[in-house]
Amino acid sequence: MTAYRRWRRRVENLFLAAVDPPCRLLAAAGVPPDAVTAAGFVLSLAAGGLYAAGRPAAAGLAVLLAGACDAADGMLARRTGRAGVFGAFLDSTLDRLGEIAIFAGLLWHFADRPPLALVCLLALAGALMVSYTRARAEGLGLDCRVGWGQRPERMAVLVAASLAGALPVVGDGILAAALVFLALAGHISMLQRVAHVRRRTREDGSK
Amino acid sequence: MTAYRRWRRRVENLFLAAVDPPCRLLAAAGVPPDAVTAAGFVLSLAAGGLYAAGRPAAAGLAVLLAGACDAADGMLARRTGRAGVFGAFLDSTLDRLGEIAIFAGLLWHFADRPPLALVCLLALAGALMVSYTRARAEGLGLDCRVGWGQRPERMAVLVAASLAGALPVVGDGILAAALVFLALAGHISMLQRVAHVRRRTREDGSK
Repeated sequence: MTAYRRWRRRVENLFLAAVDPPCRLLAAAGVPPDAVTAAGFVLSLAAGGLYAAGRPAAAGLAVLLAGACDAADGMLARRTGRAGVFGAFLDSTLDRLGEIAIFAGLLWHFADRPPLALVCLLALAGALMVSYTRARAEGLGLDCRVGWGQRPERMAVLVAASLAGALPVVGDGILAAALVFLALAGHISMLQRVAHVRRRTREDGSK
Repeated sequence: MTAYRRWRRRVENLFLAAVDPPCRLLAAAGVPPDAVTAAGFVLSLAAGGLYAAGRPAAAGLAVLLAGACDAADGMLARRTGRAGVFGAFLDSTLDRLGEIAIFAGLLWHFADRPPLALVCLLALAGALMVSYTRARAEGLGLDCRVGWGQRPERMAVLVAASLAGALPVVGDGILAAALVFLALAGHISMLQRVAHVRRRTREDGSK
C-alpha cells in the first residue's frame, strides 16, 4: 500500500507539474477559476457526446483534458486567492455533472449490450456515491478523505482504456472491462468511507 | 405554490399518521431504528429485482413500503432517543443505495429501449445529485432544504406510475413517462439548490 501511495504521489506530482505552467499563464491573463471549472464541464459533455458517437479514443482525450481543468481550477483559485464557498460548491457540482455526462455517453455507446448499459449506471452510481459519502460525512462534521478508488485513479483507468481501445488488436472489450472495474472500485471506495465514518464516530463516543 | 405546499403537508401528515402506529409498536418491541433502515434498503433491493423481472406493480408496492421504512426509521430514532451521527450517515447512504437498486432494476426493465435506459441513468443521476448538493452545501456550512422535486414526491410519482401500469389499458408507457418526469424533476431540484446556495453565499458577503 505504501509503495502504491508513493507511486500515486509521483504520478500526481507529474500531472500537477504539467498543469502548473498553463495555470500560471491563466492566472497572469486574469482568467477566473470558475471559467476553468466551466471549461472542464464542457469537455466532459464533449467526452460524453464522443462516447455516444462511437469515438472512445477522442472521448478519452476529452476526459483527460477535463481532468486537467479539474486540477487547474483548484490551483488557480488558490493562486489568485479567489477560492470561495460558492466557487467550491459549483466546482464539486459541475464535476459530478461532468461524470454524469461521461457515463451517459458510455451507456449510449453500450446500449445494445444491456449488461454493459447496467454496468455504466452502476459505475456512475459508484462515482457519485464516493462523492456523496464524503460530502455527507463532512456535513456531519467528519473528515472523509479515504478510499483507494478516488477520482484521479478512476479517470486514469477510463482514459487509458479509451485510448487503448483505439488499437485494432484491443478493441472495445478493454473499455467494457474498465467499466466493470470502475463500478467495483467506486462501490468499494464508498464502503471504505462508510467503515471510516463508523470508526470515527465510535472513537468520538457518539453512536 | 402555497396551495401546493398545503396539499403536500396534508399528504405528508396522512402518510406519517399511517406510519405512526407501527412505529409505536416497533419502539415498544425495542426494534432499533437501524434495523428499520436496513429493512427499507432490502425492500428497495427487492423493488429493483421486481422491476428487472418485469413486475412493475409489485415493485411499486415495494417502493411504497421502502418509503414507509424511510419515514419510520427517523421517527423511531427520535422516539427512542437513539439518533446518532453514524445512524444518520448510514440512513442517508442506504437510502441512496436503495435508489440505485431501484433505477438499476428499471434500466434492466427498459434495456431493450436505449432511450429509456438512458432516461433511467439520468433519473438516478438527478436523484443522487439532489442529495449530493444538499450534503455538499451542509458540508460548507449552509442549509439546503429547497427544491420542489424532493424524494417523497418523486417516490410517489414512481409508485403511482408503477401501479397504474398494471391496468391493462394503461401499460408500460406511464412508467416511461414517469421516468422522464423524474429525470427532469431531479435535475431541476438540483438547479434550484445551486441557485439557493448562490443566493445564500452572496447574502453572507462571501463569494
